[in-house]
Amino acid sequence: MTATKTIFASAVDVEAAFYEALERGDVEAMMTVWAEDEEIVCVLPAGARLAGYAAIREAWRHLFERGPRFRMHLSRQSVTQNPFSVIHNNIEQLTVVDDQQQTATIIATNVFVRSPLGWRLLLHHASPASAEILSESPKVLH
Amino acid sequence: MTATKTIFASAVDVEAAFYEALERGDVEAMMTVWAEDEEIVCVLPAGARLAGYAAIREAWRHLFERGPRFRMHLSRQSVTQNPFSVIHNNIEQLTVVDDQQQTATIIATNVFVRSPLGWRLLLHHASPASAEILSESPKVLH
Repeated sequence: MTATKTIFASAVDVEAAFYEALERGDVEAMMTVWAEDEEIVCVLPAGARLAGYAAIREAWRHLFERGPRFRMHLSRQSVTQNPFSVIHNNIEQLTVVDDQQQTATIIATNVFVRSPLGWRLLLHHASPASAEILSESPKVLH
Repeated sequence: MTATKTIFASAVDVEAAFYEALERGDVEAMMTVWAEDEEIVCVLPAGARLAGYAAIREAWRHLFERGPRFRMHLSRQSVTQNPFSVIHNNIEQLTVVDDQQQTATIIATNVFVRSPLGWRLLLHHASPASAEILSESPKVLH
């Protein structure tokens, strides 16, 4: 089975693969999670809005090449689902894996859709959380 | 018909009502657009994450009371829909209506769901756009 034909049985599986690819800095694994037949959108915490497979792939490739690695602790805050789509809203605790071990708290909305090839990621919208959220201690899922 | 029983025939109608309420600073009109029977989420550009009707109402009330008014120009960038939900990803050009007329560019993901009372807003995730997007001139829809 080639990487581009990975079939995910649930949105939760897609999300796990997304964050694992992000932690590993693996652009091929990252791109297997995205929907292929719809307009995909990725908003990164610095405010870049990327639309379409090519732009999103290039952004992750650039990010992963530049390094450093990230470690991610995920707290899933809300879930809404119907037969065709699943929406998660998460709080991500992101740690930069280097000497500084800096952390950032990110709010992320992930929209998953059911495709002929199983569940895929349609939209990832990530943005920095305010200081109030930083003081919370979310339940770690990942 | 009371304000809380407004029935929206489409996600586009809900979105128009959302941005009109925001421009008018009308908290009652704002709260008619949100879903009532699901966990609603509102992420504001400063990074606050609000969950649930009471917290979202209080945040808008506080924002509208404090002023100033906003003028919003909306550019809808992508739309995905199925019988139960609609997802819009928009670029908002926000102008503060005062002597300074300051502007900000915001990326917003809006998730709408079909409820027994018509279409409603389930999630609004807004975050500041980076400088590259600021140089674009989006098509104005609102």
